[in-house]
Amino acid sequence: MARKMELQCPMPKFDFDVITLGHGSGGLLTNKLLESGVFDLLSNEALDAHHDGAVLDLDGPVAFSTDSFVISPIFFPGGDIGELAVNGTINDVAMCGARPRFISLSFILEEGLPIEDFWKILVSIRQACENAGVKVVTGDTKVVEKGKGDQIFINTTGLGTIHPQARIHHRRIRPGDKIIVSNQIAAHGVAILSVRQGLTFNTTIESDTAALHEPILDLLDRWGPAVKLLRDPTRGGLAATLNELARDTGLGYILQETALPIAAQVRAACEMLGLDPLYIANEGVFLAVAAPEHAEAMTERLRQHPLCRHAAVIGEVAEQPAGGVLITQPLGGKRPVSMPIGEQLPRIC
Amino acid sequence: MARKMELQCPMPKFDFDVITLGHGSGGLLTNKLLESGVFDLLSNEALDAHHDGAVLDLDGPVAFSTDSFVISPIFFPGGDIGELAVNGTINDVAMCGARPRFISLSFILEEGLPIEDFWKILVSIRQACENAGVKVVTGDTKVVEKGKGDQIFINTTGLGTIHPQARIHHRRIRPGDKIIVSNQIAAHGVAILSVRQGLTFNTTIESDTAALHEPILDLLDRWGPAVKLLRDPTRGGLAATLNELARDTGLGYILQETALPIAAQVRAACEMLGLDPLYIANEGVFLAVAAPEHAEAMTERLRQHPLCRHAAVIGEVAEQPAGGVLITQPLGGKRPVSMPIGEQLPRIC
Repeated sequence: MARKMELQCPMPKFDFDVITLGHGSGGLLTNKLLESGVFDLLSNEALDAHHDGAVLDLDGPVAFSTDSFVISPIFFPGGDIGELAVNGTINDVAMCGARPRFISLSFILEEGLPIEDFWKILVSIRQACENAGVKVVTGDTKVVEKGKGDQIFINTTGLGTIHPQARIHHRRIRPGDKIIVSNQIAAHGVAILSVRQGLTFNTTIESDTAALHEPILDLLDRWGPAVKLLRDPTRGGLAATLNELARDTGLGYILQETALPIAAQVRAACEMLGLDPLYIANEGVFLAVAAPEHAEAMTERLRQHPLCRHAAVIGEVAEQPAGGVLITQPLGGKRPVSMPIGEQLPRIC
Repeated sequence: MARKMELQCPMPKFDFDVITLGHGSGGLLTNKLLESGVFDLLSNEALDAHHDGAVLDLDGPVAFSTDSFVISPIFFPGGDIGELAVNGTINDVAMCGARPRFISLSFILEEGLPIEDFWKILVSIRQACENAGVKVVTGDTKVVEKGKGDQIFINTTGLGTIHPQARIHHRRIRPGDKIIVSNQIAAHGVAILSVRQGLTFNTTIESDTAALHEPILDLLDRWGPAVKLLRDPTRGGLAATLNELARDTGLGYILQETALPIAAQVRAACEMLGLDPLYIANEGVFLAVAAPEHAEAMTERLRQHPLCRHAAVIGEVAEQPAGGVLITQPLGGKRPVSMPIGEQLPRIC
């Protein structure tokens, strides 16, 4: 994704080129790795205390969410595992109707990871945090032997303060509610797949990784409880998310195929690869279930945000099919959208 | 560690024996894995909402800490990776002077992990949570290909409410303060090493993994600000923790070798293996730096707690050696205790 600012963070002079087991020892090497730049790069009052945990002040109810990132490859068009790990957890917190404020950052590094790659990822983490206004306040670094991991896995766990107008719960969904998608779908999964397979298209398809809390908080400022549910359809795509909602609410979710916003080159790539965009992971898109009387105004408002230019009402909630998801095709036929079974694209996030 | 209660949790009938990549897909297989027992086993109101994150009420300042666990082997004398992951994060939260309340739980599973092992670990997680009165309120499950992980890695991130009398900060440490250790040291590291090396001693040496918040909160109830600092000396042992404190405070930390509580069989194993107990990881021990006038009373009080029967004042803080750690030997000689450099025992936690 386009960055709001470009950080200039030259790598400090490390006296090692790759990560070794000793960097996970808790001893001098761990300290060298952290002191030689990591703490400086991510500096803030809580992290600078160098304690086992951070002490934070949070007013009122908080949202708390965790995610481990194991994406392969770790650098991909439009982002890298560091940016993804920050944005992904920010989004999970935002989907609770909260403003993300603090994250923890925990690395599992594979012995032999080049320090330069680690540094790039760290800079990307800082950049993503600055863009989103969140702070890394506590962390952990472990190292596993070569062949017992895969370069780098990152866990981020986020904390945010719930918006005072947020009333996000699937129990509030009613037949007639509208389903809004915030932007064009399927870019992340197609970007990862294309780089894995060495495919080239006319233009590079980039991951849509982005922090989505700003447009969400704006919706909550304006419409509060009319926003009934928020979800980011990552692994398993819209199909998995809507099937989970259908299961949890016992209602039907009916999409209009012609309403789905999909970039032309993503659609073309999906057709070429035989993939259904409904099942492909997104990292910069959210679904909102909204009270019908406000859905169009919300969508209009969303389109004014740079991350949501293609927001659209894509369907609605109905009594039937109870617990199921349908899509209405261009000629009016309906087909069921089932829960994906296994792995279409492993390690997509 | 001895358990307060033994859970009877027969494994549900899964229609698979091992973890596959599909269990990390976010689709039907992921849901089957979670629905067929995981959610039931760990059930609570926040987790049952099945949202991307948990919404929590926390009053006042909170402690927030994260840790990823990569211990090998995953089952060891005295515990397993699940219990360790719960207790370890509980302890990091407790070291901030907080009552642990909520944790997140994130798995990175290697394809091929037997479901039975996963279930044992889950039951152990629930047991540890019940013993400690904490709840798993949000989680995540990823699967990586065989050979890209090592059975199971677990991240836990904890939240706790700061004790009203807690004033934990290294800036409050003064020359003359006493150093208290809460129990016998070095058991965890020696237990892991002995099982890795296939060593047998007269008795099995067990990991000391335990949640330490109860004795800590008791100290804070009684002595509040006289408890100046709390740390759990895990990776790198007492040596790493005290060297970090020395660096952060610029003061000297002087230990009495004869005062260090070490179980006879642990001491014997260390001598046989040529290991210094000061450098060995603990998972059920904390260090407290305490105002001198209360240190003896605190130690007496700690000894009444089953997890702290061998609590002792092991040394004191001095002006010199500025930023260093010394140990006074039985005949009065002093030797420096340096920061461990690299990895004495990789993947100890």
